[in-house]
Amino acid sequence: MAKTRLLKPKKSDRFSFGLWTIMNTGRDPFGEPTRPPIDPLEVIVGLAKRNVYSFELHAEDLVPLGTNARQRDRLVREAKKRMQDYDIQCTNCGSNCFSHPVFKDGAFTSNDRNVRAFAVQRYLHAIDLGYELGCRLCNLWWGRDGLEVEGSKDTRDALKRLRECCNLLTEYVLKNYPDYELSIEAKPNEPRGDIFLPTIGHALGFIATLDHPEKWGVVPELAHVRMAGLNSVHEVAQALDAGKLRSIHLNSQKPLRYDQDIRFGAEDLKESFFVVYLLETSEYEGTKSFDCHPYRTEDRQGVWDFVEGNMRTYLLLREKIKSYQEDTQIQRIMTKVCGSQRPLPSPEEIAATTYDPEKLLANRLPYEKLDQMIVELLLGVR
Amino acid sequence: MAKTRLLKPKKSDRFSFGLWTIMNTGRDPFGEPTRPPIDPLEVIVGLAKRNVYSFELHAEDLVPLGTNARQRDRLVREAKKRMQDYDIQCTNCGSNCFSHPVFKDGAFTSNDRNVRAFAVQRYLHAIDLGYELGCRLCNLWWGRDGLEVEGSKDTRDALKRLRECCNLLTEYVLKNYPDYELSIEAKPNEPRGDIFLPTIGHALGFIATLDHPEKWGVVPELAHVRMAGLNSVHEVAQALDAGKLRSIHLNSQKPLRYDQDIRFGAEDLKESFFVVYLLETSEYEGTKSFDCHPYRTEDRQGVWDFVEGNMRTYLLLREKIKSYQEDTQIQRIMTKVCGSQRPLPSPEEIAATTYDPEKLLANRLPYEKLDQMIVELLLGVR
Amino acid sequence: MAKTRLLKPKKSDRFSFGLWTIMNTGRDPFGEPTRPPIDPLEVIVGLAKRNVYSFELHAEDLVPLGTNARQRDRLVREAKKRMQDYDIQCTNCGSNCFSHPVFKDGAFTSNDRNVRAFAVQRYLHAIDLGYELGCRLCNLWWGRDGLEVEGSKDTRDALKRLRECCNLLTEYVLKNYPDYELSIEAKPNEPRGDIFLPTIGHALGFIATLDHPEKWGVVPELAHVRMAGLNSVHEVAQALDAGKLRSIHLNSQKPLRYDQDIRFGAEDLKESFFVVYLLETSEYEGTKSFDCHPYRTEDRQGVWDFVEGNMRTYLLLREKIKSYQEDTQIQRIMTKVCGSQRPLPSPEEIAATTYDPEKLLANRLPYEKLDQMIVELLLGVR
Amino acid sequence: MAKTRLLKPKKSDRFSFGLWTIMNTGRDPFGEPTRPPIDPLEVIVGLAKRNVYSFELHAEDLVPLGTNARQRDRLVREAKKRMQDYDIQCTNCGSNCFSHPVFKDGAFTSNDRNVRAFAVQRYLHAIDLGYELGCRLCNLWWGRDGLEVEGSKDTRDALKRLRECCNLLTEYVLKNYPDYELSIEAKPNEPRGDIFLPTIGHALGFIATLDHPEKWGVVPELAHVRMAGLNSVHEVAQALDAGKLRSIHLNSQKPLRYDQDIRFGAEDLKESFFVVYLLETSEYEGTKSFDCHPYRTEDRQGVWDFVEGNMRTYLLLREKIKSYQEDTQIQRIMTKVCGSQRPLPSPEEIAATTYDPEKLLANRLPYEKLDQMIVELLLGVR
Repeated sequence: MAKTRLLKPKKSDRFSFGLWTIMNTGRDPFGEPTRPPIDPLEVIVGLAKRNVYSFELHAEDLVPLGTNARQRDRLVREAKKRMQDYDIQCTNCGSNCFSHPVFKDGAFTSNDRNVRAFAVQRYLHAIDLGYELGCRLCNLWWGRDGLEVEGSKDTRDALKRLRECCNLLTEYVLKNYPDYELSIEAKPNEPRGDIFLPTIGHALGFIATLDHPEKWGVVPELAHVRMAGLNSVHEVAQALDAGKLRSIHLNSQKPLRYDQDIRFGAEDLKESFFVVYLLETSEYEGTKSFDCHPYRTEDRQGVWDFVEGNMRTYLLLREKIKSYQEDTQIQRIMTKVCGSQRPLPSPEEIAATTYDPEKLLANRLPYEKLDQMIVELLLGVR
Repeated sequence: MAKTRLLKPKKSDRFSFGLWTIMNTGRDPFGEPTRPPIDPLEVIVGLAKRNVYSFELHAEDLVPLGTNARQRDRLVREAKKRMQDYDIQCTNCGSNCFSHPVFKDGAFTSNDRNVRAFAVQRYLHAIDLGYELGCRLCNLWWGRDGLEVEGSKDTRDALKRLRECCNLLTEYVLKNYPDYELSIEAKPNEPRGDIFLPTIGHALGFIATLDHPEKWGVVPELAHVRMAGLNSVHEVAQALDAGKLRSIHLNSQKPLRYDQDIRFGAEDLKESFFVVYLLETSEYEGTKSFDCHPYRTEDRQGVWDFVEGNMRTYLLLREKIKSYQEDTQIQRIMTKVCGSQRPLPSPEEIAATTYDPEKLLANRLPYEKLDQMIVELLLGVR
Repeated sequence: MAKTRLLKPKKSDRFSFGLWTIMNTGRDPFGEPTRPPIDPLEVIVGLAKRNVYSFELHAEDLVPLGTNARQRDRLVREAKKRMQDYDIQCTNCGSNCFSHPVFKDGAFTSNDRNVRAFAVQRYLHAIDLGYELGCRLCNLWWGRDGLEVEGSKDTRDALKRLRECCNLLTEYVLKNYPDYELSIEAKPNEPRGDIFLPTIGHALGFIATLDHPEKWGVVPELAHVRMAGLNSVHEVAQALDAGKLRSIHLNSQKPLRYDQDIRFGAEDLKESFFVVYLLETSEYEGTKSFDCHPYRTEDRQGVWDFVEGNMRTYLLLREKIKSYQEDTQIQRIMTKVCGSQRPLPSPEEIAATTYDPEKLLANRLPYEKLDQMIVELLLGVR
Repeated sequence: MAKTRLLKPKKSDRFSFGLWTIMNTGRDPFGEPTRPPIDPLEVIVGLAKRNVYSFELHAEDLVPLGTNARQRDRLVREAKKRMQDYDIQCTNCGSNCFSHPVFKDGAFTSNDRNVRAFAVQRYLHAIDLGYELGCRLCNLWWGRDGLEVEGSKDTRDALKRLRECCNLLTEYVLKNYPDYELSIEAKPNEPRGDIFLPTIGHALGFIATLDHPEKWGVVPELAHVRMAGLNSVHEVAQALDAGKLRSIHLNSQKPLRYDQDIRFGAEDLKESFFVVYLLETSEYEGTKSFDCHPYRTEDRQGVWDFVEGNMRTYLLLREKIKSYQEDTQIQRIMTKVCGSQRPLPSPEEIAATTYDPEKLLANRLPYEKLDQMIVELLLGVR
């Protein structure tokens, strides 16, 4: 049946998963792992077999801190072999500068200059590794760069340190891999009380202060937007408007609470629908990447249910986009409401015109009707 | 007594209030006004007498929509006379493009092109008026530019419309008042479900896309930051870091709830302290402006208690900044913790260095002790 | 077509609207009314014609404060005539003790004993009026009983005053209308910084301290639960578990922000679905009442679109409950997972048993699969 | 100097710490431990030496799951010896039914009947252990009793299961230790998406449905209240009003985010002040217990800084309570504002009285002035 066909992902859908999402063992602040560890190479194969287009990783997911050069090269070889054998790409390689205790007070913004240098080194390695794996994007999520004690670090200093480190990475990339790009993934808090550059907006503002803003983009994560109580559709739209959307981390969670990172679409179907709408109606050519983890109650098999669920929901919502665009009643309202998009006159002309606010009020804005139609479309009865 | 002396504001403290804060009648979504209206001219005098340095306004606070040219000129004359007689400046003049029903679906992002043009016109008038009153800043808060129904407006279009309008204002200002500046005040929601450019971060990111970013700055409002659950210290710090802090709206409220807009310092003394710290230890030369309103339970006399309370708390916290800077125990920890601020080596040098994360861990970070000392300093026992 | 049939409300669906929801003129803290006032009698007729089963009101919606006895009796006669002519019931009559400035610091918890007595009087009138209109429930929402200034009122005193007033109402009802019931509607904040008894949980805890707890129930409002960031399904479930659900106020909004009060189902379809599930699978016989208001952008016609949208979404979700209960895959998982519901053994027996936690872990909990099936059911593809 | 004297805790201050707070190693969802494990016996001694009155524990903190009977008895003997030698009490012994994977979907509300029974058994053991250690309170925090997938568990069933288990514990206690008491500690979320009975209000409502409500009380944790965005002063006040405050978990954190659990007073000094006010002006005789943990950046020495900081802040705020009560200006306003506390007249009398709302408005409510004085008192200049 037609419905079923829709739910089968294809390589051309450009879906992606972080290796860490599958490697998650269910450990949390209040409990021990509920799933055994899984080898990253096995994850690569498992994703490829499910028609996932690419994977993302922290260098350390594949090459743990402390691995020697020979082991490292073997691991890279093994990964590349599987990528080739099973047809899967690598599209982002960052670094985990948050798990090791050395980063307990941050990486790029640590009060210790040597820790900052060490974090830069970790990222240089990640860029090298990514290049070898064929990817051209290094996405930065600085988990610990924040604070709980306002007195412990002046945020003005922190921003200067972040900038210094980002500029060093740009310098390295420009010299060694000129087609490589860098991006920032923002998060408001957890594991720090407040993390620097808490939203995509802050990241965009910060990028404008870098030496080479054109080398930098952003990767919004929907759940991080919701942790800040903001609107993830608007967040993605601003990234697109600025020409800065490099990838996207799809997932969901309840707003304003701990980092739940659950399956895309599990919360707020309407917001998810409009995010898909943005991706499918813009020039965006990046991956649709899922960064979340299975419920801690799942076993290994449930992890793959989770993988499939993420992609099925995306495909279903994408199908609804078509119905939305072909729904004549919906489109008629939108056309009528939207009025003229012609550019405004010059300031002089505007200043010389007489506007009557009472008359301008005459247009109906039937948004109750419009939104109700969208709800019914989502519920499958249009 | 010394303490009392501290609490007397001086003109040189550069405090400012919005006219609308005093003109607030206590009306809210669930109730009628509890205070009689007050004339804006009377507000100007009342503020001046209390050693307030300047006032801010929406043009419509002084010159209501629909006022004819003659009345308008008389009102301006009256205002200027009082400004001179009582020694008070005007330091920001924006426009109220949110109260009239014509703006019910936004001003600069309205779906109706004529409403957008009308809103631009209102701002042109506000800039003219501000110039006459001697001010050089037009701060924009677009109260209704947002949505509840995602389908009613594509945020990508909304951002384009915002940009078009902002560029028109820049054009007007560059031509007519080259020393005039423009700024954006962000707010996450209320009166719209989601407002475009919800935080100062988003505003900074957006400004980078304007024709003349150098003409634009930001005005963070502390309560708006708290409505988004973010850290107001970090928000102000990023504006300073970007060289974009044009003014600041001081106030407070409980996080993640409706727009309470209460007296500065009434909530979260520690966060307020660190905001004052930023202002007093940077090159910032703008006003310290209060944008809040008295509790609805207050009568007219209480409004002036409110005015004094705002300034007293600022002065008290400023005094504590001095103690903080002179507290040798606090400063000793901070110096020790902060380590070297020398620039990092080049990427090549970093790549070639061996770092031992275990050794880097040896430094103590006595933040419990530090934060406790700050708490005791705030409580007045250091 | 079948789908269309589903969306036609019937009197037997027991839908209800507050008169105030239709009478809302779109005024908000930042703007003037966008819709002309509408007569409550017209509202009653308009609702009845759309197959709404009943209306709710604040006594003051029909009989404004200050109406004399003769006018009041005429208004009541007029209302009853329309109720009979158009077949609509009245199922809840409370009092508006929040709009008039006299209640600016609360009604039952005002610091002024006479204000407290006046508020009790308003409720006695509301009970009398409700009785005349044939209703048997007086639901209390104490909009202003809260505070911003912790020092202005000791919450322990406030709770004593609330209890005294509630007990007086019980006394009155027991003596005059023994079949009348009373209920509490909780809200966390707005228009006060914090409102006393912020959630249904707090109301249930408070009711246990009243003289006649059996006379009191609760009326959860979904949007109020979401304003507190809590789970509205769990809130309604606890009211049902306690045997205290007297009515329900259906609506929606984004969590943790100002009181949006928008159309049921406009936000969070999944949570809405499970609320309907609770109502349709329990013994609940109260009304399904909508307490929200149309977007401020709507005109008068849009208000009736809003009325219909609320009921359509409920009916659609109710239809999905049936599919859910008949979906064999879903039900199979739930049966398997749920295990035995037999009562537990005695403490002695439990103490004497050996449990092996490792063995207990063997059961699979395929919640990813289950939740994905529910998402697909909601989206209309199961 | 006087100030210093205030900050020395005495046994008579009845301070308490959870063993787990000191045993916390700094592990979190994104990182490894930053502190080595510490032996619970060492913790007991360390607390005692700092004049802490008592400790609380989960039975498993002292006697890990899987300990045999002989080892268990030895551990208990060792603990009791230290308690006697160093003069420290045990005032609460609960059970950790959340860390082991067997509890991954809850303990008392697990879908698996045997898991529910096993959890009850754990609590029976904890009660036995507590009794041996001389304590008379078993406080329950059911970390995992909640859900992410609404379809996985009907909340009505969950509440029935909770009640069954609670009633079994009551039965055991009534039979074996009639002077033992039980209490509920509520939390809104984390580690589950939503936890059942999310606030103290919900716990109070639930207790009213138990077989022996008189055996059950509550233990509010301030940070849990703030995670729900509610007012912790009001939460504690309602527990006191209901006669149900058995202990209190003092700490702090930023509202509406992950479980930070930081030092008492580190956030929101005003709210902390009014919580201390409630404890010090009521009949409350329980412990002032701290349930939080040191910043993850601290080493072992910092843990003891943290212990001292918690107590110092409490003592400082307690001192300010005295100033508050002796401040004649503050007290004059409060007396004037508060009016008459005489009971209200009967309903009949109220119904027969004429109230003039306009006249009732005449009283001034100088809350701006009052709150400003409290702020200045907190800042140490009154």
